[in-house]
Amino acid sequence: MRIFGIDPGSARTGYGCVETDGSRHRIVLSGAVSTPALAPFPQKLLRIHERLSAVLDECRPECVAIENVFHSVNVRSALRLGHARGVAVLAAVQAGIPVAEYTPAEIKLALVGYGRADKRQVQRMVALVLGLAAPPSPHDAADALAVAICHVHSLTPGRTAAAAPRSKAATSWRHYRPQRT
Amino acid sequence: MRIFGIDPGSARTGYGCVETDGSRHRIVLSGAVSTPALAPFPQKLLRIHERLSAVLDECRPECVAIENVFHSVNVRSALRLGHARGVAVLAAVQAGIPVAEYTPAEIKLALVGYGRADKRQVQRMVALVLGLAAPPSPHDAADALAVAICHVHSLTPGRTAAAAPRSKAATSWRHYRPQRT
Repeated sequence: MRIFGIDPGSARTGYGCVETDGSRHRIVLSGAVSTPALAPFPQKLLRIHERLSAVLDECRPECVAIENVFHSVNVRSALRLGHARGVAVLAAVQAGIPVAEYTPAEIKLALVGYGRADKRQVQRMVALVLGLAAPPSPHDAADALAVAICHVHSLTPGRTAAAAPRSKAATSWRHYRPQRT
Repeated sequence: MRIFGIDPGSARTGYGCVETDGSRHRIVLSGAVSTPALAPFPQKLLRIHERLSAVLDECRPECVAIENVFHSVNVRSALRLGHARGVAVLAAVQAGIPVAEYTPAEIKLALVGYGRADKRQVQRMVALVLGLAAPPSPHDAADALAVAICHVHSLTPGRTAAAAPRSKAATSWRHYRPQRT
């Protein structure tokens, strides 16, 4: 089974695909969609959508797991992040793939067992779980793999992610399955 | 020349197309993409993107004008609005259409001549400019036509929209032209 993680951002969107047989997990691929800092914002959105659509087509995952952020520095950065996350979710839905979302605390709890773990602890656990010598680079890719691993754990009864509290975010839907038409 | 206006929202996204010969303007069409309140959020994003893509293909406008909001009730609603606006902008860019953005104050200034005009004044002016007996319904459609008219005015030297101050929004790009490849 393949799970595709996304860590959305308007400057850089991380992605990573994990394959699991239920007990052992391996990395399929990971990377990040970067856009030139001076590129027009609509062009950045187009690039995020195009790249994610292409990688999803390549990986053909059973599910997409995406980080759900509902704390942000301010309204402006929330709006900006929302644009990037919107086109990322759209890419998954257009590919007919179910989408699950997890808060940063749920991801940390699932990976490290502690909802306030720091970023480096999470990234070291990503490397450990996937049998890598070092955390994948850039860090956005490692964060995306962390979301994917969080979803894998949520599928295993008794794991921490499954026991995490339900997200209260305004954009929350928790688990989404495309309607078959 | 045809200008397509969008008033983005996650619950309802208004749209409207205006045709102008430089002095006289007429409405081509207007409407709103509504989604059932209980529909999963990813499904709403898909519907907004699909519907706008279809109407843009029908209208074939020279430019899309979209409202740029950077004040919001809170971070959560800004995130939610960002998702809807992101897929709306994506639909325009994918269709290869230039996008221009205007703040609510710029739109009010262009339509009513006063940046703090109320919604009803703007909607009455939309009806007047387009020669309609009453403002188009729903109000999201009228708001979308107002953005389109604002852009039409900005093309006319000496009109108020052109003299409006440049937006300082984080997501601002003001005018975007797709790169021809």
